[in-house]
Amino acid sequence: MGSAKIKVGILGATGTVGQRFILLLSNHPEFEIVALGASSSSAGKPYKEAVSGRWKQAQPIPAHVGEIPVNECEPEHFKDCGVVFSGLDSKPAGPVEAAFREANLRVFSNAKNYRRDPLCPLIVPLVNTDHMDIIPHQQKELSLERGYIVTNANCSTTGVVVALKALEAAFGPLDVIMVQTMQAISGSGYPGVSSLDILDNIVPFIDGEEDKIEWETSKILGGLKDNNTAFDLHEQSPLRVSAQCNRVPVIDGHLACVSVSFKKQPAPSPEQVAEALRNYQCEAQKLDCHSAPQQAITVHEESDRPQPRLDREWQNGAGVNVGRIRKCPVLDIKFVSLVNNVMLGAATSSVLNAEVALKKGFLA
Amino acid sequence: MGSAKIKVGILGATGTVGQRFILLLSNHPEFEIVALGASSSSAGKPYKEAVSGRWKQAQPIPAHVGEIPVNECEPEHFKDCGVVFSGLDSKPAGPVEAAFREANLRVFSNAKNYRRDPLCPLIVPLVNTDHMDIIPHQQKELSLERGYIVTNANCSTTGVVVALKALEAAFGPLDVIMVQTMQAISGSGYPGVSSLDILDNIVPFIDGEEDKIEWETSKILGGLKDNNTAFDLHEQSPLRVSAQCNRVPVIDGHLACVSVSFKKQPAPSPEQVAEALRNYQCEAQKLDCHSAPQQAITVHEESDRPQPRLDREWQNGAGVNVGRIRKCPVLDIKFVSLVNNVMLGAATSSVLNAEVALKKGFLA
Amino acid sequence: MGSAKIKVGILGATGTVGQRFILLLSNHPEFEIVALGASSSSAGKPYKEAVSGRWKQAQPIPAHVGEIPVNECEPEHFKDCGVVFSGLDSKPAGPVEAAFREANLRVFSNAKNYRRDPLCPLIVPLVNTDHMDIIPHQQKELSLERGYIVTNANCSTTGVVVALKALEAAFGPLDVIMVQTMQAISGSGYPGVSSLDILDNIVPFIDGEEDKIEWETSKILGGLKDNNTAFDLHEQSPLRVSAQCNRVPVIDGHLACVSVSFKKQPAPSPEQVAEALRNYQCEAQKLDCHSAPQQAITVHEESDRPQPRLDREWQNGAGVNVGRIRKCPVLDIKFVSLVNNVMLGAATSSVLNAEVALKKGFLA
Amino acid sequence: MGSAKIKVGILGATGTVGQRFILLLSNHPEFEIVALGASSSSAGKPYKEAVSGRWKQAQPIPAHVGEIPVNECEPEHFKDCGVVFSGLDSKPAGPVEAAFREANLRVFSNAKNYRRDPLCPLIVPLVNTDHMDIIPHQQKELSLERGYIVTNANCSTTGVVVALKALEAAFGPLDVIMVQTMQAISGSGYPGVSSLDILDNIVPFIDGEEDKIEWETSKILGGLKDNNTAFDLHEQSPLRVSAQCNRVPVIDGHLACVSVSFKKQPAPSPEQVAEALRNYQCEAQKLDCHSAPQQAITVHEESDRPQPRLDREWQNGAGVNVGRIRKCPVLDIKFVSLVNNVMLGAATSSVLNAEVALKKGFLA
Repeated sequence: MGSAKIKVGILGATGTVGQRFILLLSNHPEFEIVALGASSSSAGKPYKEAVSGRWKQAQPIPAHVGEIPVNECEPEHFKDCGVVFSGLDSKPAGPVEAAFREANLRVFSNAKNYRRDPLCPLIVPLVNTDHMDIIPHQQKELSLERGYIVTNANCSTTGVVVALKALEAAFGPLDVIMVQTMQAISGSGYPGVSSLDILDNIVPFIDGEEDKIEWETSKILGGLKDNNTAFDLHEQSPLRVSAQCNRVPVIDGHLACVSVSFKKQPAPSPEQVAEALRNYQCEAQKLDCHSAPQQAITVHEESDRPQPRLDREWQNGAGVNVGRIRKCPVLDIKFVSLVNNVMLGAATSSVLNAEVALKKGFLA
Repeated sequence: MGSAKIKVGILGATGTVGQRFILLLSNHPEFEIVALGASSSSAGKPYKEAVSGRWKQAQPIPAHVGEIPVNECEPEHFKDCGVVFSGLDSKPAGPVEAAFREANLRVFSNAKNYRRDPLCPLIVPLVNTDHMDIIPHQQKELSLERGYIVTNANCSTTGVVVALKALEAAFGPLDVIMVQTMQAISGSGYPGVSSLDILDNIVPFIDGEEDKIEWETSKILGGLKDNNTAFDLHEQSPLRVSAQCNRVPVIDGHLACVSVSFKKQPAPSPEQVAEALRNYQCEAQKLDCHSAPQQAITVHEESDRPQPRLDREWQNGAGVNVGRIRKCPVLDIKFVSLVNNVMLGAATSSVLNAEVALKKGFLA
Repeated sequence: MGSAKIKVGILGATGTVGQRFILLLSNHPEFEIVALGASSSSAGKPYKEAVSGRWKQAQPIPAHVGEIPVNECEPEHFKDCGVVFSGLDSKPAGPVEAAFREANLRVFSNAKNYRRDPLCPLIVPLVNTDHMDIIPHQQKELSLERGYIVTNANCSTTGVVVALKALEAAFGPLDVIMVQTMQAISGSGYPGVSSLDILDNIVPFIDGEEDKIEWETSKILGGLKDNNTAFDLHEQSPLRVSAQCNRVPVIDGHLACVSVSFKKQPAPSPEQVAEALRNYQCEAQKLDCHSAPQQAITVHEESDRPQPRLDREWQNGAGVNVGRIRKCPVLDIKFVSLVNNVMLGAATSSVLNAEVALKKGFLA
Repeated sequence: MGSAKIKVGILGATGTVGQRFILLLSNHPEFEIVALGASSSSAGKPYKEAVSGRWKQAQPIPAHVGEIPVNECEPEHFKDCGVVFSGLDSKPAGPVEAAFREANLRVFSNAKNYRRDPLCPLIVPLVNTDHMDIIPHQQKELSLERGYIVTNANCSTTGVVVALKALEAAFGPLDVIMVQTMQAISGSGYPGVSSLDILDNIVPFIDGEEDKIEWETSKILGGLKDNNTAFDLHEQSPLRVSAQCNRVPVIDGHLACVSVSFKKQPAPSPEQVAEALRNYQCEAQKLDCHSAPQQAITVHEESDRPQPRLDREWQNGAGVNVGRIRKCPVLDIKFVSLVNNVMLGAATSSVLNAEVALKKGFLA
């Protein structure tokens, strides 16, 4: 059976996203880690040595992965891989991912570089896996038989867009979206945020983050058009999104306060919203993907939930948590949303996207 | 000189707000602490003994205050006081403050109980000290010669309303205000928030807080009407305010993300807003009150400020800090605001209100 | 098969230790929760309602346990239980546990009340399960056919005594033990430590804790004597133990810096100590108990481990972590030790003690 | 009067220790900042621009200092300085400080490089300012008329050695010293400790720190010998010191648990120790130096003090706090000690050493 698994590689394997890929994939029913890529200083060492002193997970390195030799991020070392997961920083990600695609490898990337590319789908696996239908167009345009890049969204975008999608699915297009985030330090990688900046403190600024939420939301909530060769970016009837982002002293879990209004009035009641969120089902669930959560959106009844520390680990961080659904005195509805930024907000998204791709024939 | 000082008393002297009153008043040029009130379990003990194990300030108890005997919160022990400051919890505050007023004492209260009373002014000292003009009406209605109650606002309201007032002063009435707060644990008193609830966590709920911001803002930004016998609560053209409040692992300093729109269009530019905030001057400054900040609103230029830990102590916490003034894609302008919740957000407000009252003849 | 499980009850089921008992026992191969006890205010409610707002675990309440009705802590409600686990606070624990024993119930208690009782064993399950041999004497003295009390140790004692036992097993009696702890806030229950006391702070004092470490260590490391009717408390050749205890802003995981000297000289080298700790095996492991860790003591090689956040979850918190084994310039050897205070330091100890009791026939 | 001040320079002015030097010296009665040195990337910029984004103090940059142009750390830019304070990292400190001394400048350094140099005094200003008497020998050996280097101790050593000195002064030589520290993140500079390493965590290792405490203590507590040309390093009757060092999530303030034994027996009682610490007076106090604390050692009576957050700011962090003085079951006495690591543990030590040097004629 093991021989039937799809061989996969991980780029940026020693980084924080890479470490999560390793934990998610080390015992996966469909994928099998065979290749690890990192910077040249790590190349040639067994993984456990390359990552020594930087493994920051609460579980030990899976024994068999620890022995896999790390290579530089060059396609030749990943030739056998049916999927390559990229946890690279944005600096190397641009050229490296392009080179891998050019070498006819399928790249499922957590990096930001190709999210706005008109050929690359930007997929939150609980939201818009139908965007994979642009893959044939991407391959055709680049004259590639097998290679392509699928990206997933920024962690904070992911945290709000699942609930937004569920609302649009039930009540039609949104008009205005106001988001204010409180984002965990793990979103910034390692060493990332200095403790002197965040202990007993909030930093009300995360470089580029507000723009990402405002822009990515439109691409993700939009559809495909022109016979699956382009994205509908809401040019006709733009979504109006305003985001304010803050870094907070929380290890994992991005919390967002969201207010929305609907184009169609009268707007739904808080009870109707709660029910719509609770009932929301995405394609990854319907396809019974291994990493899909049982409940896409967990709706909390207690007045003080969701909370990062208490709710981020539910369903192994693969779902979204929503609470405090109530009327907004200015817009229609306001609520609080929580995503596990290192799981669904990062590695889990790439893995789940690949699982959907497998079920839908894009890994054939 | 000392003999010329106005004798003052402090109710709730052993609590966290009471401790701040003591630090602010122990060496004040115009006020002199002569009486301290607390619960019956403290009564009869010298202050330093009554507060033992609960003094949580980074400075020692002022030596002469430590010797003052604590009494129960009954007017007879405060007969000599020209001003009584109340740091009581809301439970005892209602009847106690009423009894003190009835005994012809002037109460400057940090408690919430009389904020919505149609006879009592709700004053943020950097905003609406003109509301003291309702005091004669309060006294007349209650047939009191000297006694009255002046309240100050909730700490989170205070944190946003100073900037809002400056905006209205420069650009006319606001239309919509959206506020999302990240509030320090000290706002909840001692023992207050359990460490198990807040370490590595955010609690997206503070009981009653959102309603306070939404309601108090209207009273504070409104004027007096009917010949100084009533408050203009914006009944005609209501302010629309929506607040979301969160508790964060920060010791002192409430941060708020604010978005606003103006009734008058076109709205001012971010540069015009920054200049208006920088130039804003309140009555307490013009009257040269001892505790007034030199700069009511400090506008930060750096992209990642204000931050609670770095900026809360400026001007001894008596001013407000604003930063990140920029266009809002949905409303007109968005920005970040910081208030020191234990200083201007609590004890400093009461003290500064009393200083203004002194200058304006309300302590005669 | 389920019908063959031993029915168990939990006292103090809504508290923090009780919640851990529930997670450990809700899916246990040998035990089955049938009765829950809490204070009278909870009695009569289904568990999920009784614990509402106080469930502070990162996993949801097991569904079937949520429906179990809570009773007062009276033996009549626990008649069917083969084992009763007590997570009671010390205040109720004394009389309640005595009453349960008197009613011929077997109590495995995490409370401190009977630890120093000359009839009750004080058992750290990785150390001295042989002390259960005093149970027949306890029953005989009290004229009970089935009832007895087995206690487990204070969480901080547990954290150091496993390594000490391994050292004594390999190198003979210890002479001097110096311990300095850095203890997590969860050790203090809920609400427990105020966030104002511990954020950006250390409290160098935990009431009664140093004495517990100094006293309990002697009972645990001692043997039984006088034909299993008494404990050898090292009266002849006393262990000299000195402890300093601190509360730190860590959620779970007590860390201790330990220095020891041996009676037999020359003392072992750090390498010999590391090997002895690594090879140490306790009776619970040999009996293949369900909750026993695979490795009683995990010896870390990295110079900066163990760390609470990274290492407390290994083996579901059932083992102990040791690192930084090196020569002490004053005593013989110094090292760092970590225990998960809410797991092995509390609920896991009681459960594992009961599992050992089952294997050894004390639940027959 | 201003013209009579001694001109001083600061090396490493943009770093965290340098920032503290600026705050301590910007309004000093005897010293006047005229020159600032930093890395070549800062050179040529006014200070406020050079430090932009890295100023991490809770007070703004003193206005006049913000305008001083930053230079590279070369003696020619510091020619007019009667004293040069060095907050350099150890990497540049070695050659730079030597070059400054060679250029006949007096360097008061917080860096570790010359602490073990047999010509350079290692001075904790509350302990051994008499060691300045080796300065003439240092100058003579190096054929310098004016230049010399005076170092101060590592922050954690400083935190314990003041109390140890007071004990030796009262009760004669110590025999054994066991120290376990809990050190603040600011001790590691900026960006220093990653928040992912320390939030909800302890790191039981600080590179080189234990060795510093064990070694520096002997040099500081020793005297001068051979006619003030050498240090007495306790070769004859060595102090036995064992240290264990931990990094904790505290911003400022190093806490230490200390146990000691005395050579002379019977050892003093806890009460005698408390009295000796309370009465301890150092030379800097007797000389009435500007930055000297009024009380060298504040002895706390409360059972849970000193605590970093509450006690680190007393006396502007220039004194030491001791509490929990009690018998040690193994050695003689144990207690808890707190030092403000960024004040007395760093910049305040250098400044106070220079103030003593001024009073004693070493700046003539």
